[in-house]
Amino acid sequence: MQRFALIGAGFIGAVHAANLALHPDIDFVMVYDVDHARAESIASAHGARATQSPDEVFDRRMIDAVLIASSTDTHADNLRRAADAGIAAFVEKPIDLDLAAAHDVVAYAERAGIPVMVDFNRRFDRDHAELRRIVQSGSVGDVELVLLTSRGPTSPPIEYVKVSGGQLRDQTVHFFDLARWICGADPVEVFVAGSALADPRISRYGDVDTSVATLKMPTGALVQIDSVRRTGYGYDERIEVMGASGLVESRRHAAGNVVRYGGIHAAADGLHAGWFERVRPTYAAALSAFVSTLTEGTPVPVTLDDGLKAQAIADAATASLRSGLVQRIHYPSVDSRDEPQ
Amino acid sequence: MQRFALIGAGFIGAVHAANLALHPDIDFVMVYDVDHARAESIASAHGARATQSPDEVFDRRMIDAVLIASSTDTHADNLRRAADAGIAAFVEKPIDLDLAAAHDVVAYAERAGIPVMVDFNRRFDRDHAELRRIVQSGSVGDVELVLLTSRGPTSPPIEYVKVSGGQLRDQTVHFFDLARWICGADPVEVFVAGSALADPRISRYGDVDTSVATLKMPTGALVQIDSVRRTGYGYDERIEVMGASGLVESRRHAAGNVVRYGGIHAAADGLHAGWFERVRPTYAAALSAFVSTLTEGTPVPVTLDDGLKAQAIADAATASLRSGLVQRIHYPSVDSRDEPQ
Amino acid sequence: MQRFALIGAGFIGAVHAANLALHPDIDFVMVYDVDHARAESIASAHGARATQSPDEVFDRRMIDAVLIASSTDTHADNLRRAADAGIAAFVEKPIDLDLAAAHDVVAYAERAGIPVMVDFNRRFDRDHAELRRIVQSGSVGDVELVLLTSRGPTSPPIEYVKVSGGQLRDQTVHFFDLARWICGADPVEVFVAGSALADPRISRYGDVDTSVATLKMPTGALVQIDSVRRTGYGYDERIEVMGASGLVESRRHAAGNVVRYGGIHAAADGLHAGWFERVRPTYAAALSAFVSTLTEGTPVPVTLDDGLKAQAIADAATASLRSGLVQRIHYPSVDSRDEPQ
Amino acid sequence: MQRFALIGAGFIGAVHAANLALHPDIDFVMVYDVDHARAESIASAHGARATQSPDEVFDRRMIDAVLIASSTDTHADNLRRAADAGIAAFVEKPIDLDLAAAHDVVAYAERAGIPVMVDFNRRFDRDHAELRRIVQSGSVGDVELVLLTSRGPTSPPIEYVKVSGGQLRDQTVHFFDLARWICGADPVEVFVAGSALADPRISRYGDVDTSVATLKMPTGALVQIDSVRRTGYGYDERIEVMGASGLVESRRHAAGNVVRYGGIHAAADGLHAGWFERVRPTYAAALSAFVSTLTEGTPVPVTLDDGLKAQAIADAATASLRSGLVQRIHYPSVDSRDEPQ
Repeated sequence: MQRFALIGAGFIGAVHAANLALHPDIDFVMVYDVDHARAESIASAHGARATQSPDEVFDRRMIDAVLIASSTDTHADNLRRAADAGIAAFVEKPIDLDLAAAHDVVAYAERAGIPVMVDFNRRFDRDHAELRRIVQSGSVGDVELVLLTSRGPTSPPIEYVKVSGGQLRDQTVHFFDLARWICGADPVEVFVAGSALADPRISRYGDVDTSVATLKMPTGALVQIDSVRRTGYGYDERIEVMGASGLVESRRHAAGNVVRYGGIHAAADGLHAGWFERVRPTYAAALSAFVSTLTEGTPVPVTLDDGLKAQAIADAATASLRSGLVQRIHYPSVDSRDEPQ
Repeated sequence: MQRFALIGAGFIGAVHAANLALHPDIDFVMVYDVDHARAESIASAHGARATQSPDEVFDRRMIDAVLIASSTDTHADNLRRAADAGIAAFVEKPIDLDLAAAHDVVAYAERAGIPVMVDFNRRFDRDHAELRRIVQSGSVGDVELVLLTSRGPTSPPIEYVKVSGGQLRDQTVHFFDLARWICGADPVEVFVAGSALADPRISRYGDVDTSVATLKMPTGALVQIDSVRRTGYGYDERIEVMGASGLVESRRHAAGNVVRYGGIHAAADGLHAGWFERVRPTYAAALSAFVSTLTEGTPVPVTLDDGLKAQAIADAATASLRSGLVQRIHYPSVDSRDEPQ
Repeated sequence: MQRFALIGAGFIGAVHAANLALHPDIDFVMVYDVDHARAESIASAHGARATQSPDEVFDRRMIDAVLIASSTDTHADNLRRAADAGIAAFVEKPIDLDLAAAHDVVAYAERAGIPVMVDFNRRFDRDHAELRRIVQSGSVGDVELVLLTSRGPTSPPIEYVKVSGGQLRDQTVHFFDLARWICGADPVEVFVAGSALADPRISRYGDVDTSVATLKMPTGALVQIDSVRRTGYGYDERIEVMGASGLVESRRHAAGNVVRYGGIHAAADGLHAGWFERVRPTYAAALSAFVSTLTEGTPVPVTLDDGLKAQAIADAATASLRSGLVQRIHYPSVDSRDEPQ
Repeated sequence: MQRFALIGAGFIGAVHAANLALHPDIDFVMVYDVDHARAESIASAHGARATQSPDEVFDRRMIDAVLIASSTDTHADNLRRAADAGIAAFVEKPIDLDLAAAHDVVAYAERAGIPVMVDFNRRFDRDHAELRRIVQSGSVGDVELVLLTSRGPTSPPIEYVKVSGGQLRDQTVHFFDLARWICGADPVEVFVAGSALADPRISRYGDVDTSVATLKMPTGALVQIDSVRRTGYGYDERIEVMGASGLVESRRHAAGNVVRYGGIHAAADGLHAGWFERVRPTYAAALSAFVSTLTEGTPVPVTLDDGLKAQAIADAATASLRSGLVQRIHYPSVDSRDEPQ
């Protein structure tokens, strides 16, 4: 049994708590949150204990692994403490909004040698993983063109926009990671065009809510990513990979399978109203993969290096959006064997 | 070039006329109809000649083949004349509403040795033919269950109902033929339940507009056919064949490929408003197959025996509908090598 | 909190146990099984207690409701004991394989006045429920034709076949219930044809594994149900309802959303390999509905009368299969307000 | 009856010839081609006359309209001659590969006042037109994001690549036109990334075969177009328009409607092997629209100005591909009322 502590009892913290409680190889010991009432509420619902002391969380005698789901600006510090304590960590993205700071803590954690997994949970979507398996099998040939669609139903609150790092760092970063993971390669340059269409106020913060990114891979293969903050039709996520000999798609998910015909029209169930309904199973799957790393020694499925590289792309993309110019992507030089696989 | 005469210049006659005119190996010579103005109209549109003399139609010196699309009660006589003249015939179904009469004229035509094809045009639907190819290839295993759906958009006029022979002989007969053709076997018994729901007046004529037929094949395989005269959603035709190791479907056709998402709903193009839009290409394909028989000596693709057998099933089905009892199907003993293939 | 005891710790018992443990308004107290080790295993996994004494299960001071998931031949006795104790019951179908015996215990339970729900869980499938909502809203018009498809992936063991009551009572009965529930009416007659194709041995027990049922509703509307024990392509369940003005379908579920194109072919995820993956969520939904009955006094969603009526149809269907004749369906006269809604 | 002459008897000329012959309001008089034998072959197949004299083609006493389907470098001259003769013209795109030259001949034709239609035939695709109708109706809200996919099955011969003007001017230009037509607005800037992946030889001519274009509309709406010369899975053309309140798609077309299930897989008909099968009906529809202009005075559906503007976008796109920079699009100032509608 791996003894886990959870840091952060917000919305995503609660999702992780339920998965920690259900996993057969996890002993869900402890919850910490700056808002202690929130920690207590989650702890009591899942048979864990709420603590007011971060020291307990990082006590190696009681805890084997920590799940860091606290606010973004605390990720790096928590990771550093885990490294100091020799405790494994599963950390929500991003490692740190500042790429240089992120790089420092990654180097720190790597020196400490603790297993760390970054929660790029979309890699654990059943359909995305099946698509990647097909691509990697070679059955569509060498990758030539990839299209990714990331469209959420609702604009985030303006308060969130201010601290999010922008659409490309906050939303599109998942798809930068998916592009690397699917292609098994690091893009060399990026161009982004964007607009603030759903909520023009966000342009005051230099942000956009509708954007189109073009990445070029070392082979010349092209990747398009469209990112939208607010659709009028629910949550829409898709991937399409064209290779030299075929195409594979991970299609959008319908919320149901009912269709009605009348006159010359057909009416069917649309998409899930919210993103969580689609993405929900990926959190448990990501956690399971991390537990396999801890218990069976399988490679960390999403490394700190993966986290840094996706951030590096997001930084270059943000620079392109602001400058209107194609940007070469500079990857931080972390000594790492963690090539995308 | 095969010199064709067309008998019958109604709706289906006009369809055949256009196909006769376009076929590269057909010389479309002549049109006859009891309504001469109608014959003239069609003839002039396609560079053929209208005649008022049936003798010209059956003049072997001018005509190689006759396409019989006149009213049902004239099919047998026209077939007999073709046999007398040694002229090939392509005949609309049914051969004769009376099975015994049909049997007589079939025997007559077979003695004369003329090539005759019955227009079970649905065998020439691209999707149905592909489905049958898959079934015959063995890739779904031995056939165990077949579902056929035959649903037209509009109830026929009551005047037509009176002379049509009833839904099972007029509409379902095409699907009795498809069942034989797909399974490569003749059903041994049939049960039918039906109701007059769309137009209760037709029950005065012993007819129904909504019916469900169950056939049993010699192997025990089961066939279900649902037949509907009037849907509220266009023309719906489908086939589904379950074998021991898989399933194959020839799906309904949408009228277009546009879909709209809004809120939690999706709205798409429905089905074709009318049956003809779906079935149109099958007429030219059936005619082409007949021309191949005439010019290359390929086997007649739908024989008189096929026509008789489908009628025998329709007769037994009608008897079941009226009696409420399962009926064994008695096939007329025509000496024939035309086993379903 | 409703205090529940579970009787029966087999496969379905384990499913119920997990749902009992997760439901926020249920206190999962106790498990009983003739195989005590099995009871203990399930109890310990969910924080309940295994008991060797049926008396404890029916002790009104400790238990508010009992979930009867034991073997079919014990359902009636357990229901009788619940009635004696004044304990609510949620009972797996069938009530009793013998319709007269089932009728007796239903009358007994109704006299006792305990709330009893029969687990026709498919009514709680999200898509089926949405289909019924659309039908009941009138937006497809009066029901004229219903098609139900029930196809499992694997033939049951021959030992199970012997005691199952036959395909129609064991498998198709769920769909007899769905037909009543969707149409809001009781069928008046039934005809069934069937064959033993997948496992011919079962014909020794008078059973079939591939069958086609035709039901007639009081309005003349027709219902077709095809039931298959062993497909070669996974679990396939569908409903299609044609009304006077349109059609609504609850379509088969794909196991994934990945499609690959290459050459002139497309390859996609097929169906779920097993029935449980498709049906899983319905058990929790059914249990929730029962809890609403207990806590909020909402009507019992699936009554004993519903259970009896579905069995009556299954009995008539079995008689039709054996006799080859259409059977009128005789419903047991239970004094009941539980008309299908 | 409009008397038409056809110039050019190549592949597309033959397609037009068949449509000219079938149109009820067209008298198909004459065919001219530099290869007279080719002209004669097409003329005789459709009851027209082959001429060796271009003077006859532009003889106003015999001809009302000319369909220009000759090689690209002759379009402008033929258009000029039609203008001189006062004969209406239906011209294949592009008007001239050189935008300035195209501009000159457009001004010339507009001064002459003859009706001229450019054959952007994809506007006449049933599904694309329905998509545009929905967009224009406002039912998906203001356009925010448009995705167009243009993927052909086969790389063109290298000889063709040299004279084609490049992928963006030859292939993508149709989709630049569709983008203007759907949005009812002219894009202001364009960025293109591209690679020569299928046939690296074409990079010697400065061309690519896989490209991704991003356009920005005056409102900030974004348009993505991916263009591929050689897929491994047939012809793939799609449009997707996201507005503020919904999404509408014109989906790819399958070549058939057959699907097979076996094990955990489904296999279906893929896409059309070639582009022509998909696009075929649009040529006749475009011609019909032009005939309506000639006979009923309806507005020219695709004007010379539309042709020029699409070329202007293609020119800017080509400049972006070569420079790696975003390009503003400069539209030629033709005095015109022909705003995109």
